[in-house]
Amino acid sequence: MDGNGLHGLELRSSISGEGVLELSLQEAAVPEPAADEIIVRVEATPINPSDIGVLLGPAALDTAEFAGTAARPVVRALVPAAALPAIAARLDASLPVGNEGAGTVVRAGAEVVHLLGQQVAVFGGAMWAQYRRAKAADCLVLLAGTTPREGASWYVNPMTALGFVQTMRQEGHTALVHTAAASNLGQMLNRICLADGIGLVNIVRSSQQAALLRGQGARHIVDSSASDFTAALTAVLVETGATLGFDAVGGGPLAGQILAAMEAAARQTANGYNHYGSDRHKQVYLYGRLDTGPTTFERGPIGFAWGLGGWLLMPALKKLGAAAEARLRARVAAELKTTFASHYTADVSLAEALQPEIMRAYCRRATGEKFLILPQQGLG
Amino acid sequence: MDGNGLHGLELRSSISGEGVLELSLQEAAVPEPAADEIIVRVEATPINPSDIGVLLGPAALDTAEFAGTAARPVVRALVPAAALPAIAARLDASLPVGNEGAGTVVRAGAEVVHLLGQQVAVFGGAMWAQYRRAKAADCLVLLAGTTPREGASWYVNPMTALGFVQTMRQEGHTALVHTAAASNLGQMLNRICLADGIGLVNIVRSSQQAALLRGQGARHIVDSSASDFTAALTAVLVETGATLGFDAVGGGPLAGQILAAMEAAARQTANGYNHYGSDRHKQVYLYGRLDTGPTTFERGPIGFAWGLGGWLLMPALKKLGAAAEARLRARVAAELKTTFASHYTADVSLAEALQPEIMRAYCRRATGEKFLILPQQGLG
Repeated sequence: MDGNGLHGLELRSSISGEGVLELSLQEAAVPEPAADEIIVRVEATPINPSDIGVLLGPAALDTAEFAGTAARPVVRALVPAAALPAIAARLDASLPVGNEGAGTVVRAGAEVVHLLGQQVAVFGGAMWAQYRRAKAADCLVLLAGTTPREGASWYVNPMTALGFVQTMRQEGHTALVHTAAASNLGQMLNRICLADGIGLVNIVRSSQQAALLRGQGARHIVDSSASDFTAALTAVLVETGATLGFDAVGGGPLAGQILAAMEAAARQTANGYNHYGSDRHKQVYLYGRLDTGPTTFERGPIGFAWGLGGWLLMPALKKLGAAAEARLRARVAAELKTTFASHYTADVSLAEALQPEIMRAYCRRATGEKFLILPQQGLG
Repeated sequence: MDGNGLHGLELRSSISGEGVLELSLQEAAVPEPAADEIIVRVEATPINPSDIGVLLGPAALDTAEFAGTAARPVVRALVPAAALPAIAARLDASLPVGNEGAGTVVRAGAEVVHLLGQQVAVFGGAMWAQYRRAKAADCLVLLAGTTPREGASWYVNPMTALGFVQTMRQEGHTALVHTAAASNLGQMLNRICLADGIGLVNIVRSSQQAALLRGQGARHIVDSSASDFTAALTAVLVETGATLGFDAVGGGPLAGQILAAMEAAARQTANGYNHYGSDRHKQVYLYGRLDTGPTTFERGPIGFAWGLGGWLLMPALKKLGAAAEARLRARVAAELKTTFASHYTADVSLAEALQPEIMRAYCRRATGEKFLILPQQGLG
């Protein structure tokens, strides 16, 4: 029922059974909120790598054709046939996109009318839209003085960075390694670790990125493009005692190089010879896919006390429990302008998010490049 | 002090600081046992892959030179300079070799004189020797009618196979995948799983190996050399619900193929689409190194709920606790002629274990080839 008279655009992604991806903006009536729900007018929502996964699925961007009008663009691209079985469950479904964002409460159910006019941050999908219905209890009310723009990236990166630290504690490690460390997420993690006194080894891919983190007070920075990478990494692992890494790259040899350097560091500080290597457990979690190629590692240099694994935010938070998650959310709310501040390369409208140059830019997933969608902008 | 007048040969391995491996037989006086110790005359001791690791270290067998006499052979081989740092702790040390074996108690300390003349199985290194001193409490007294030959391989393979099942239970899985499944260890695991009603997916590398296991009643056999490997593996994973694998191969794509097939099986039985893949945790432990090349896997087909890791017997047993380990040992003792029976390609003397053709044969680590050293044989 179109009870409240609101209509809004939403960005939708669907893949047909024949393997054609279609992205478009669709006008939809905004439903009436239930008693415990609110309607948020979305004012800012970021483009995260995790959103791009839902947006494109396994479609190849270089096959994209751009049609429609400037205000109502339509993008079509092809999914390789071999990739279809793995996404059987989403075929022919129209999926909303956008994990997180923030805006103003414009409608509120009977139990939550006090939220009307408040600015809130939302997580949970379907945020690349002008309006989003949400359970009030799932939203974060922004502190006075925090804008929707400042609150848009409140969940994915902040909770992931805090989640890394929680996993570290749960699994008995005392210091961390992080790759692609100059990213927005990496900068947050650096600020958390500096504030909380946690040793953090920042692995970056260029001297520019190293300089950026150095300017933010990072203590341990290793450049994987430098010729002394392995030796430098081993030295800071000895210094920090880090035996847990979070890797955003995923593909290639990097995760294995981290395990090997952790093992070399452990052997330097161990007593006596053990044919099977150090008995200190070394773990690297792959949480990102900046490199989608295969992951390769040598087992000789890493001994037997090691693990590689996938790491996802939601299962990690579930393991943590609701009370602990609530504490993390409260910290994010209080530190959105400092620890958890995000920086954006450019602002775009919903329609611009489907323009060729802009899509190519955010699909590069270059460290430090991040786009913000302003869904109320550019309406015709 | 040479108090008991016994002398015996031991096989020794040492690597010099310059990277020269030397293997030889050395005559040593057998020490007097302490009050709680025994001296075992070793009558049978197997050559396990784990022994070869200690024996050769990272030396290249194809550089080996064979010198000495037939009764006192000396083997020298070269360790690549790049491999020396990782073994710094063993350089210039003369290491005994041989994890396990069995024989007759020929001397016993005051507290354990009742063991004199008994046949016992020993684990813990230095078994490629004519005599071995051991704490009586660490030994397994063989049941009447079980010979040292039958008891020689009582620990490494039996406890590893039982350890796999224990790890499965500890980590909440209900069925297993095993590679190189036609090995002595694989045959034991098959017998355990048949007896205990545990689903076991046996991955083999040839139709001959498949036939061998089929002849032993194995229910689920998949041949990785067959063209329908992936489909066949996925089908038996759906059938068994196995989400834990133990991989003896280690290198190459196999572990990743197992994870991908587990994920495909999980998606077949899951409800609805999850962009990040199934939330069912899939785990493969690499416990062997039949392929010493790099391990490679694709992350796209495995989702995020997965882990790879090293698996070693001793830490796994430690996690299990002493009481549980004692129960496993008792089961091994009772079933040495059935569940835990080993088969050997050939018997060799200590001196023959250092002959070129024999070394080349056991260093191939071919599935189903296994050598037994009889240290009392061939003495001149």
